[in-house]
Amino acid sequence: MSKRIAGPEIERLIQLLAKVPGLGPRSARRAALHLIKKKEALLRPLSSAMADAVEHVRICSNCGNIDTLDPCTICTDPRRDDGTLIVVEDVGDLWALERAGAMNARFHVLGGTLSPLDGIGPDQLNIRQLVERVAQGGIREVILAVNATVEGQTTAHYITDQLSDFELKATRLAHGVPVGGELDYLDEGTLSAALKSRTEF
Amino acid sequence: MSKRIAGPEIERLIQLLAKVPGLGPRSARRAALHLIKKKEALLRPLSSAMADAVEHVRICSNCGNIDTLDPCTICTDPRRDDGTLIVVEDVGDLWALERAGAMNARFHVLGGTLSPLDGIGPDQLNIRQLVERVAQGGIREVILAVNATVEGQTTAHYITDQLSDFELKATRLAHGVPVGGELDYLDEGTLSAALKSRTEF
Repeated sequence: MSKRIAGPEIERLIQLLAKVPGLGPRSARRAALHLIKKKEALLRPLSSAMADAVEHVRICSNCGNIDTLDPCTICTDPRRDDGTLIVVEDVGDLWALERAGAMNARFHVLGGTLSPLDGIGPDQLNIRQLVERVAQGGIREVILAVNATVEGQTTAHYITDQLSDFELKATRLAHGVPVGGELDYLDEGTLSAALKSRTEF
Repeated sequence: MSKRIAGPEIERLIQLLAKVPGLGPRSARRAALHLIKKKEALLRPLSSAMADAVEHVRICSNCGNIDTLDPCTICTDPRRDDGTLIVVEDVGDLWALERAGAMNARFHVLGGTLSPLDGIGPDQLNIRQLVERVAQGGIREVILAVNATVEGQTTAHYITDQLSDFELKATRLAHGVPVGGELDYLDEGTLSAALKSRTEF
């Protein structure tokens, strides 16, 4: 705001809210106003939830997941298959795969992709730790569930190289038509991949 | 999330973030992850900014504005013209007009519009307080800067009725083409109003 029209506490709240992904300067003002109006129902609980998160959130020293426990809920879950390890770039990808709920496997979070131009080499990612986990034995398959981008694929290739000495299967996600997707809106690369990997009825 | 994959603190944070206007369930997860990753740079300051807001934010007993002072910064600002009072529906409208910075007037926040079906009559709005402020004298013009909706206009008419005994000018915002707007995209009502209120070069 150009002129001071509200106390510094409110302007600071707006400025910080504007840094939350999904909110811009305009929606941050609307959000701040809504939060202030719902002080007891929303602002107070959200404030204390954030304070709790600051206090309790840890990064799992085993897999790189974010949780309030270390080792995390997934690493300590006794019902998961120790033989299958899904490697993801980011915690958000782990959450997305868990929402899909298709596999009861363990995870390993890399924390990004190889990007020499940004100074991100293997040592900046959780790759050494991944090799150590595999070296401990018991893992039959490593699923490289990285994004279908150049960086993601480069990282996947680097990791399969690192794991080539171990006796395990390295797999990656299938390319194809998204479920519910319309062919007309898909790019040529996806369509070619879907045709190549066609399956029988 | 269907399965428990993170501690309850993180899931509670996501649930509360999803209630912030501008964020949905999906973007709340992304926002929570971003906040947790930027714990010191963003999550901690935002948490304390919210706690400050819970503690310090007041509703101005004079005009209905939201501020950390009561009376608010605008009501106590000595450089504003006491003779002009801008009546708005909501604090968000007050902020919008202040950002425009076109007038150095006082404000009065109604807190909504008349809406008999929703049980909102004159007593649920700050109308009695507005009449009292006008009755104290010194106000030459009341600008009814309500939204150009049926409810807004109904409320404006009700207020002008209530103020008809006082010697003052009641005005409303001009209708017309938004600055930078293209005629092709405007509705007929706005175009008719803009033609009717045309001004000389």
